[in-house]
Amino acid sequence: MNKDELKSLLSAVQDGSLSVDDALLKIKIEPFEDLGFAKIDTHRGVRQGAGEVIYGAGKTSEQILKICQKMLDGGEKSVLVTRLSAESADYLKQHISLTYDEVSKIAVAGEMPTAKRVGNIVIATGGTSDIPVAEEAAQTAEFYGNNVKRLYDVGVSGVHRLLDNAHILADARVVIAVAGMEGALASVVGGMVDCPVIAVPTSVGYGANFKGLSALLSMLNSCASGVTVVNIDNGFGAGYTASMINKMG
Amino acid sequence: MNKDELKSLLSAVQDGSLSVDDALLKIKIEPFEDLGFAKIDTHRGVRQGAGEVIYGAGKTSEQILKICQKMLDGGEKSVLVTRLSAESADYLKQHISLTYDEVSKIAVAGEMPTAKRVGNIVIATGGTSDIPVAEEAAQTAEFYGNNVKRLYDVGVSGVHRLLDNAHILADARVVIAVAGMEGALASVVGGMVDCPVIAVPTSVGYGANFKGLSALLSMLNSCASGVTVVNIDNGFGAGYTASMINKMG
Amino acid sequence: MNKDELKSLLSAVQDGSLSVDDALLKIKIEPFEDLGFAKIDTHRGVRQGAGEVIYGAGKTSEQILKICQKMLDGGEKSVLVTRLSAESADYLKQHISLTYDEVSKIAVAGEMPTAKRVGNIVIATGGTSDIPVAEEAAQTAEFYGNNVKRLYDVGVSGVHRLLDNAHILADARVVIAVAGMEGALASVVGGMVDCPVIAVPTSVGYGANFKGLSALLSMLNSCASGVTVVNIDNGFGAGYTASMINKMG
Amino acid sequence: MNKDELKSLLSAVQDGSLSVDDALLKIKIEPFEDLGFAKIDTHRGVRQGAGEVIYGAGKTSEQILKICQKMLDGGEKSVLVTRLSAESADYLKQHISLTYDEVSKIAVAGEMPTAKRVGNIVIATGGTSDIPVAEEAAQTAEFYGNNVKRLYDVGVSGVHRLLDNAHILADARVVIAVAGMEGALASVVGGMVDCPVIAVPTSVGYGANFKGLSALLSMLNSCASGVTVVNIDNGFGAGYTASMINKMG
Amino acid sequence: MNKDELKSLLSAVQDGSLSVDDALLKIKIEPFEDLGFAKIDTHRGVRQGAGEVIYGAGKTSEQILKICQKMLDGGEKSVLVTRLSAESADYLKQHISLTYDEVSKIAVAGEMPTAKRVGNIVIATGGTSDIPVAEEAAQTAEFYGNNVKRLYDVGVSGVHRLLDNAHILADARVVIAVAGMEGALASVVGGMVDCPVIAVPTSVGYGANFKGLSALLSMLNSCASGVTVVNIDNGFGAGYTASMINKMG
Amino acid sequence: MNKDELKSLLSAVQDGSLSVDDALLKIKIEPFEDLGFAKIDTHRGVRQGAGEVIYGAGKTSEQILKICQKMLDGGEKSVLVTRLSAESADYLKQHISLTYDEVSKIAVAGEMPTAKRVGNIVIATGGTSDIPVAEEAAQTAEFYGNNVKRLYDVGVSGVHRLLDNAHILADARVVIAVAGMEGALASVVGGMVDCPVIAVPTSVGYGANFKGLSALLSMLNSCASGVTVVNIDNGFGAGYTASMINKMG
Amino acid sequence: MNKDELKSLLSAVQDGSLSVDDALLKIKIEPFEDLGFAKIDTHRGVRQGAGEVIYGAGKTSEQILKICQKMLDGGEKSVLVTRLSAESADYLKQHISLTYDEVSKIAVAGEMPTAKRVGNIVIATGGTSDIPVAEEAAQTAEFYGNNVKRLYDVGVSGVHRLLDNAHILADARVVIAVAGMEGALASVVGGMVDCPVIAVPTSVGYGANFKGLSALLSMLNSCASGVTVVNIDNGFGAGYTASMINKMG
Amino acid sequence: MNKDELKSLLSAVQDGSLSVDDALLKIKIEPFEDLGFAKIDTHRGVRQGAGEVIYGAGKTSEQILKICQKMLDGGEKSVLVTRLSAESADYLKQHISLTYDEVSKIAVAGEMPTAKRVGNIVIATGGTSDIPVAEEAAQTAEFYGNNVKRLYDVGVSGVHRLLDNAHILADARVVIAVAGMEGALASVVGGMVDCPVIAVPTSVGYGANFKGLSALLSMLNSCASGVTVVNIDNGFGAGYTASMINKMG
Repeated sequence: MNKDELKSLLSAVQDGSLSVDDALLKIKIEPFEDLGFAKIDTHRGVRQGAGEVIYGAGKTSEQILKICQKMLDGGEKSVLVTRLSAESADYLKQHISLTYDEVSKIAVAGEMPTAKRVGNIVIATGGTSDIPVAEEAAQTAEFYGNNVKRLYDVGVSGVHRLLDNAHILADARVVIAVAGMEGALASVVGGMVDCPVIAVPTSVGYGANFKGLSALLSMLNSCASGVTVVNIDNGFGAGYTASMINKMG
Repeated sequence: MNKDELKSLLSAVQDGSLSVDDALLKIKIEPFEDLGFAKIDTHRGVRQGAGEVIYGAGKTSEQILKICQKMLDGGEKSVLVTRLSAESADYLKQHISLTYDEVSKIAVAGEMPTAKRVGNIVIATGGTSDIPVAEEAAQTAEFYGNNVKRLYDVGVSGVHRLLDNAHILADARVVIAVAGMEGALASVVGGMVDCPVIAVPTSVGYGANFKGLSALLSMLNSCASGVTVVNIDNGFGAGYTASMINKMG
Repeated sequence: MNKDELKSLLSAVQDGSLSVDDALLKIKIEPFEDLGFAKIDTHRGVRQGAGEVIYGAGKTSEQILKICQKMLDGGEKSVLVTRLSAESADYLKQHISLTYDEVSKIAVAGEMPTAKRVGNIVIATGGTSDIPVAEEAAQTAEFYGNNVKRLYDVGVSGVHRLLDNAHILADARVVIAVAGMEGALASVVGGMVDCPVIAVPTSVGYGANFKGLSALLSMLNSCASGVTVVNIDNGFGAGYTASMINKMG
Repeated sequence: MNKDELKSLLSAVQDGSLSVDDALLKIKIEPFEDLGFAKIDTHRGVRQGAGEVIYGAGKTSEQILKICQKMLDGGEKSVLVTRLSAESADYLKQHISLTYDEVSKIAVAGEMPTAKRVGNIVIATGGTSDIPVAEEAAQTAEFYGNNVKRLYDVGVSGVHRLLDNAHILADARVVIAVAGMEGALASVVGGMVDCPVIAVPTSVGYGANFKGLSALLSMLNSCASGVTVVNIDNGFGAGYTASMINKMG
Repeated sequence: MNKDELKSLLSAVQDGSLSVDDALLKIKIEPFEDLGFAKIDTHRGVRQGAGEVIYGAGKTSEQILKICQKMLDGGEKSVLVTRLSAESADYLKQHISLTYDEVSKIAVAGEMPTAKRVGNIVIATGGTSDIPVAEEAAQTAEFYGNNVKRLYDVGVSGVHRLLDNAHILADARVVIAVAGMEGALASVVGGMVDCPVIAVPTSVGYGANFKGLSALLSMLNSCASGVTVVNIDNGFGAGYTASMINKMG
Repeated sequence: MNKDELKSLLSAVQDGSLSVDDALLKIKIEPFEDLGFAKIDTHRGVRQGAGEVIYGAGKTSEQILKICQKMLDGGEKSVLVTRLSAESADYLKQHISLTYDEVSKIAVAGEMPTAKRVGNIVIATGGTSDIPVAEEAAQTAEFYGNNVKRLYDVGVSGVHRLLDNAHILADARVVIAVAGMEGALASVVGGMVDCPVIAVPTSVGYGANFKGLSALLSMLNSCASGVTVVNIDNGFGAGYTASMINKMG
Repeated sequence: MNKDELKSLLSAVQDGSLSVDDALLKIKIEPFEDLGFAKIDTHRGVRQGAGEVIYGAGKTSEQILKICQKMLDGGEKSVLVTRLSAESADYLKQHISLTYDEVSKIAVAGEMPTAKRVGNIVIATGGTSDIPVAEEAAQTAEFYGNNVKRLYDVGVSGVHRLLDNAHILADARVVIAVAGMEGALASVVGGMVDCPVIAVPTSVGYGANFKGLSALLSMLNSCASGVTVVNIDNGFGAGYTASMINKMG
Repeated sequence: MNKDELKSLLSAVQDGSLSVDDALLKIKIEPFEDLGFAKIDTHRGVRQGAGEVIYGAGKTSEQILKICQKMLDGGEKSVLVTRLSAESADYLKQHISLTYDEVSKIAVAGEMPTAKRVGNIVIATGGTSDIPVAEEAAQTAEFYGNNVKRLYDVGVSGVHRLLDNAHILADARVVIAVAGMEGALASVVGGMVDCPVIAVPTSVGYGANFKGLSALLSMLNSCASGVTVVNIDNGFGAGYTASMINKMG
């Protein structure tokens, strides 16, 4: 239930079209639905102003389905599912309406959001192999109604690729810099723009990258101001936070 | 080198006014010259409504003084200096106007910014020992013209302290969560607000905190959406980024 | 042989119904049975007041079977087997009576313990993916005769889910807090109760969780008093220790 | 906000005594206000039979003094201060009644607790150098009214020292095993007793002990059941938890 | 486009056989071709004096094919592909001319370079298992026109194997030392020659080699002067840099 | 060629039954046979007084076969192959005489050594899962002519299992202590004997054992004198060194 | 408790001279009492031809003095003290007879051992800075009656220095290889001798040596057979173990 | 021992002038004696056009003085001493001619080299705090007769500073990139030049830079070809290797 919906509900109580008891039932059956294995936060839409998201990894197809159904039944129009395997996506499609993207492993259950997209989030990657993580960020941001520009394979070892796209960066309200290996993209981008940069280290690389540690440490130590960091491969977190920032303005 | 410049250069080769070798040199080092990015720095004051910042650690008092003087001579009204030792502060005060805070180790050279503060950045700490880092964030944000509310010693082992201040958090445009030890503050705060949370791990603690590693990893793995992380003890970075976000709205 | 059985045996010697030599044979053939590859501790029941347990990982099905049979032949009524693969469980079922749970990978060979369960151990998890580890703890505790309450998916990013169950926590003699990612659950729970909290970090998560390291360090650095920690994913250890504490009262 | 409070609120909207916007605000920040958790702290003295504790490291002498005075003024009879430097102790003694122990760095402000000590906590150390940490545990436990037996320098490389004291261990309700270097004490003790063992890794050692990491990992991987672990050098945490367990029975 | 080709083009402009516009088109359609998922650096041949290379790992067969085709269409005579799986190689062979080596996982698309090989790069390995990495270095160096001598299985635990080949080492302009386990080869070789040594740690080994970390740290700490290090298993990087150094002379 | 064989050869030269040139050929065709991918150390038997050994991991079946054949052709009576997969063993058996043990993954090519075994090496393990590593040590030691006593599953959490076998330990000239998890076996054994103890950490365990790191650090920090350590899971190294020590006496 | 003792106990129960409860207590804490292992320590002087050793670090001057006096009073002729600060040495000299070496920080309390030194232990170092650790090993070995040859500054980057001393190494019964930085000395020496090599990593170096970690990992991964490792900077452990091995022959 | 020497030896055995046992000894310790590698060191001055170097850290002033004097007496005209403390420099100046630089901690004993400097080594730093390490590199390179250009404070967060100096980089035969924090300088520079880049990570930074680890990993994972890495803060190693490369051309 989002803020607008709650406001409508309260107005309905005010004008008498909804009884106190019915409103009570709708708002606080509980702030979460208890499925035993999961306590769905039906209140989050109210608190955070956006729809629910399910982290798909580590859950069975059956668990994901039950959570989706409960949410859709509870009034959510669309639910974002991240880190969803192709197998689970196939299973879900047999029971509910679902749109699935194989690259980002992101699915949308229910209706695809159709709200006009606003603002300008630029998502840059160091290389081609970083694209799956970047798409997780991009599609998350689009799900929450943001306008996204993709700038892929602009790693710092060919800094002209980045410079030639400086005008795109200059236009951003938030930049998401996605890079593995040495993760230097965040610092160079951070020095080129005057908006927040969310750095996403990826596990792309080998050897002494230690599954993303090199990019993570590099980004945390960025000498550019305005750079903050999320977990390795956490495209969703970057897309979600970027959305929060973009929609404030 | 843009298309027109390259065309001119080729024409110069064609008409003999430029030798093949000189053209070769110019093209070869292109596209890295003359891109106008030098403007970024000198324009920062214009864009951000406040001046430059110097990271004081690892620089001699003399180096810091020279940089300050160059900036002030160049037209900056005020310069922020972070991680400034008391000794260096004493040295600087003999040569330039300087305001110094011992807790945060932050100094302002030149005039204190007087612009009306806007927005609402809440800075929360897990404990008393995190305050120096929190103050680095707070005073940085204030230097850049933000309104800051301090919420210190609200660590999660006494979660009621945090809950009793929920109204303050609810009002924030950005929250900075500063915590050492297990760094759980960021996750709990992240679940309570619908604005971005910048998490600052501190090196407060002992033993298996490994100088801030425990809080850092904890914050990077936050299960709350909307949380991004900066380097251990990097109050400045958090304050600077929070300012960027706050002033966008 | 547990304490009561040993007491009976000694009484039988005292009243002459058992000869010294027969008693000698029963008590100390050896304090362990030597299978060559394993030395079964037949004395542990005496020393520790509870039945034997076999750690199934890293042992062949044949080895586990032989140990189980030796123990059951030696008078144990039931044997707990942890980390047992489904394949090994199938193999064992062909030779001995065995109850197996797929989620926790726990099996009970011989009779299921039927003693009335006492006390009150609460087992809380941060998320749905932590349930297998939590069930290892829960079923271990139940095997040893404890009453267990499950409180799953009450992670700190939605702290109201935890607060709404505060009455359940308040009733506990021991709480087991099972969480991956940032592992903050232990600290928040630790601040809410006045009984010991055993924290179990799980390997749930990705990237900078480094297979449970983030939750482990977080829990070791808990700012809440009364929190102790076991190995990553060590549900058994938590359940066993909780049982020890619960049954003391 | 419980059901009745929410019903009142909705009724207030219905009868016009509360505006929709004010109701929205109240629900939105709910369910985090007014949950009564503030009682936990002020009730701790009642529950535990002894007063508050202050972690002295990272706080100034002035800060510690103010907290002590606030607590004593608030009715606490005695306050435990851990990790207190000799300098700070000297400062405090000038203003309040304080008993200070140089080995453990523990101080008691106010009256020394005089309640009869109960139960039986055994504290064992691997070597002589572990004694300061062991004393932090011992004096914490004594402060909270427990009976403590010290068994120092019984490291496993001379296992007979431990075995010769088996009767002392056999009598314990909780054992605290304090050891640096390879930290094996916890496992050997854990196999000898049928009560909980709280393992405290210390930073004693050099080289590949990496400031306590070797003992910490060793203890977390203990093959003995019933062993839980606290942070490196965290004598207080062990003593506090042992007290909780001991006083349950 | 390499330096010589660019010079020819410029000369053609100078002598009128090529119009400025056509030259413009050839040089700077863009300094990179934008394939959406990859921005091919068509200018690198100019800047770095050698053909393009594609890092095959983490790219789909289709992506690699498209990049190869674009490059070959763009005038490259041959393209080096590293870390190419046998499956991808099979796929590529169906569409373009490709030579593939299974040991080093290196492929050359287009024509095999036929330029006379110059200089003298010696590639030594500690053991047999290091050969795949060594071959990646060797074939990279050969691709760029260098003369390579292989000296395999000359690890330091049988130092006479190395000494008996001292004359080969003495003749080198650059030595590449490839070793896993303790990585001592770099130091011993470094003390025997007066040319640069590029050390390549490999992930060969087990246990405390931590996937190449032991060799990496060992090589970084080499007590021999003139030793520099590349990433674990990075045969390509070593071969490429050795080529740069060798061809300078 | 071992010391005795070399002495015979020299005697044959002395008494004229072997010409200088033939002796020359035999001794130093080279101190190693160069197979291109491997330089076989035919001199090691001379230098180290024992037959050759091949580390099987990371070599192809074909490479291992060629090395074995070259050695056997060169006069070795038997060759030890460690870390040999069952598949490679099957392949080798088709071409040469080979005895293979599945548990330890050790094979002997050529004749099984039949020399009378001397001395007394005791090999103890903490648990059943450590047996494969222990057998690698045991069979290596037996290959080199040592008498081996196995003492398996005597981990320190049931220290009586170890104490009851104290007489076996007391008889040893060298003890090999093989243990995973907390690796405390080495310290307890080290305190019980007055001979050298070679500690072998194993990767047995889970979670914070970090693939053997916990046992490794524990053993390196052993408080018992006389304990040295080899790499994680390095049964061969322990068996080989124990043989060196045992055969000195 | 052996069979006879247990039989007596059971007979005592049978004839009523021992109550069931007392018997229960005795059996329950068995088999840990009265095992005679206390003899080990007091017999060490007898077995090893020299007295006890005290690890001086982490003990106060007073504690060291008391232990020394107790030992000397108890009949020890001489006591070895390692890691003794110059300050503590000065303090001890005021009360007991003491010989102190500033380089190795080793002291001998009581009489210097005068027994004829036997065997041949060679101690080699990579560099000059490793000498303090080497001397700790050397003087420990000499204290226990071994003949020691020092071979300092023969690091592998100048391998001829080592080779020119091959005859000294060839004569050793045990070699101790002491090295920091890349620690390669152990491997090269290990390949040159047919006796055990004890490797001592030192903390000598900087940066990525991480206080001895690089040398430690290097030595654990040595490709030479016959190499075992002790803790970083643990000269004493190496000297003590070498003595054990040397005196067996 | 070469073929001819071995033939002579065998002939001596044949004609009785050498006993079998003496021959055995000679062969057995072969092939490590008398290989002529001692020439390497004494010839270094000849080969490199400049003298020896002493690593000053970890050596006493007296040791450094003796080595210097030995070298100067032996004919070296000048000796480079690195990591020399100001105190040691003062001591040395009392005995020999010495030039000392406080920033780089580098001293030259004997005459300052006066040979004409050749080639072109560019040394770039990310920030001001990296200058001491850069100067160690610079002055080492100058000592060995190279021409050095300094390009300090051109970190990637202000990439225009680097681009504006592209012409200087374009002219280099080798570039040394010195940077702490995220160490991205190496990658950006590596993409701009077609000569080798030697990357020097520095320990400049704080928190998650872990004393240079972040820059080290970043540089090892550089996506730019032609980048190799030396140890953290190892300016000397970079300067020395750059000299080797520069002087080859």
